Amino acid sequence: MPRLLYLFAVAAFSLSFALPLRADTLPVPANLIPFDSTEGEKLLVGAEATKAYFALSEQFVTQQNQAFCGVASLVMVLNALKVPAPASEELAPFSAFDQSNIFTAQAEAVLPRTVIEENGMTLDQLGALAKAFGLKAAVRHASDTNLDAFRRDVRARLETAGQYVIVNYLRSALGQQKYGHISPLAAYDADSDRFLILDVSRYKYPPVWVTASDLFAAMNTPDRDNDNRSRGFLEISR
Amino acid sequence: MPRLLYLFAVAAFSLSFALPLRADTLPVPANLIPFDSTEGEKLLVGAEATKAYFALSEQFVTQQNQAFCGVASLVMVLNALKVPAPASEELAPFSAFDQSNIFTAQAEAVLPRTVIEENGMTLDQLGALAKAFGLKAAVRHASDTNLDAFRRDVRARLETAGQYVIVNYLRSALGQQKYGHISPLAAYDADSDRFLILDVSRYKYPPVWVTASDLFAAMNTPDRDNDNRSRGFLEISR
Ligand SMILES: [Ca+2]
Ligand SMILES: [Ca+2]
Ligand SMILES: [Ca+2]
Ligand SMILES: [Ca+2]
Repeated sequence: MPRLLYLFAVAAFSLSFALPLRADTLPVPANLIPFDSTEGEKLLVGAEATKAYFALSEQFVTQQNQAFCGVASLVMVLNALKVPAPASEELAPFSAFDQSNIFTAQAEAVLPRTVIEENGMTLDQLGALAKAFGLKAAVRHASDTNLDAFRRDVRARLETAGQYVIVNYLRSALGQQKYGHISPLAAYDADSDRFLILDVSRYKYPPVWVTASDLFAAMNTPDRDNDNRSRGFLEISR
Repeated sequence: MPRLLYLFAVAAFSLSFALPLRADTLPVPANLIPFDSTEGEKLLVGAEATKAYFALSEQFVTQQNQAFCGVASLVMVLNALKVPAPASEELAPFSAFDQSNIFTAQAEAVLPRTVIEENGMTLDQLGALAKAFGLKAAVRHASDTNLDAFRRDVRARLETAGQYVIVNYLRSALGQQKYGHISPLAAYDADSDRFLILDVSRYKYPPVWVTASDLFAAMNTPDRDNDNRSRGFLEISR
């Protein structure tokens, strides 16, 4: 093999290691029902509360890095609520929130982007950030409520236009990989007693239907980054 | 008013003009049914072909600039088809296609990013770009087929796992603003004879249900950027 061709071949081979290709999401544990499955599709069609789904699914985004689950979730809700976004050079005269322009001066004053990049967000920080956009945002720690109240209140919100719920839960409690996570809820099916999570780590897991009790248990876990307060959910509206 | 405070006030006022806030999408013409409306929701629940919807809705993205409708559409289909994406520093060990990493060496060789940024894409260019990823991609100019064949073939694809259709149509023919556009189809409802377009310019229009005949007419329009060949649709699978 001519020397130059050999060097090209070595370079191409090395590059194929340096840039491996990946597309697989992780397997979904048996207690969760993937949205994009025969059972998952049927659940949406028969779900009792879907108002949030139709508005949020139009705004579904992938978290930009592994710390931005809360950022991505809030971007979806801001756009679903039609909160005016900063002007965009690319989209002018239109605009929309994304995972860059969400860091307005008001947002930075509450919680700097650099802090989120380092540590992600706690439930309380997510609530504070939502309020920086003038939203009504009620932080609900799971340990301060119970399964029945959670199910009743959140179902009612998912049935109502302009009402959104973002959940903060421990993935490992659901059999997922692995740490604390944040994503919006979109729907509730009463017959199966399951909520639909629009998981923003779309590169890792699909949206899933989770039972109210499994979800509540995964929220009712202490968060070391939040003085061991329990995780929980954020109720948001304009 | 102290001079310095006055200057600050003037600066703040000017900035509020320089950075106006916008969130409104445009009004949807009466011939189109918004997805996020009582009628639009009912159409999904009763739709005869929804296989593509469940996989594509999980991958829905906003086009990053006004020339990237074709790029955003192809990102959605690549991810729905689980085509391995380039490795990602941010998401490692996971990855997914986005509107930056889609410009691989193979893609650039077929159609450079700079060309798309300048002119967008024609239907034939979109087909060539899809093939650069090893996909089966059949370009169908509307003028080479007819409404009945379009409806039958595309409905069958939307009912089948792993089969996708991206449409290229003239917005003004649907009463929308304004030029040629590209977005994926996601579902078909036989009773209303309507297709669901997951419009990637999410900052501008919501997803809409359009009648097969209106959509076919909007595709059956000459594209000056493509030697006046008609617009049409791209059938894609692995
Ligand atoms: Ca039900
Ligand atoms: Ca943490
Ligand atoms: Ca029907
Ligand atoms: Ca053009």
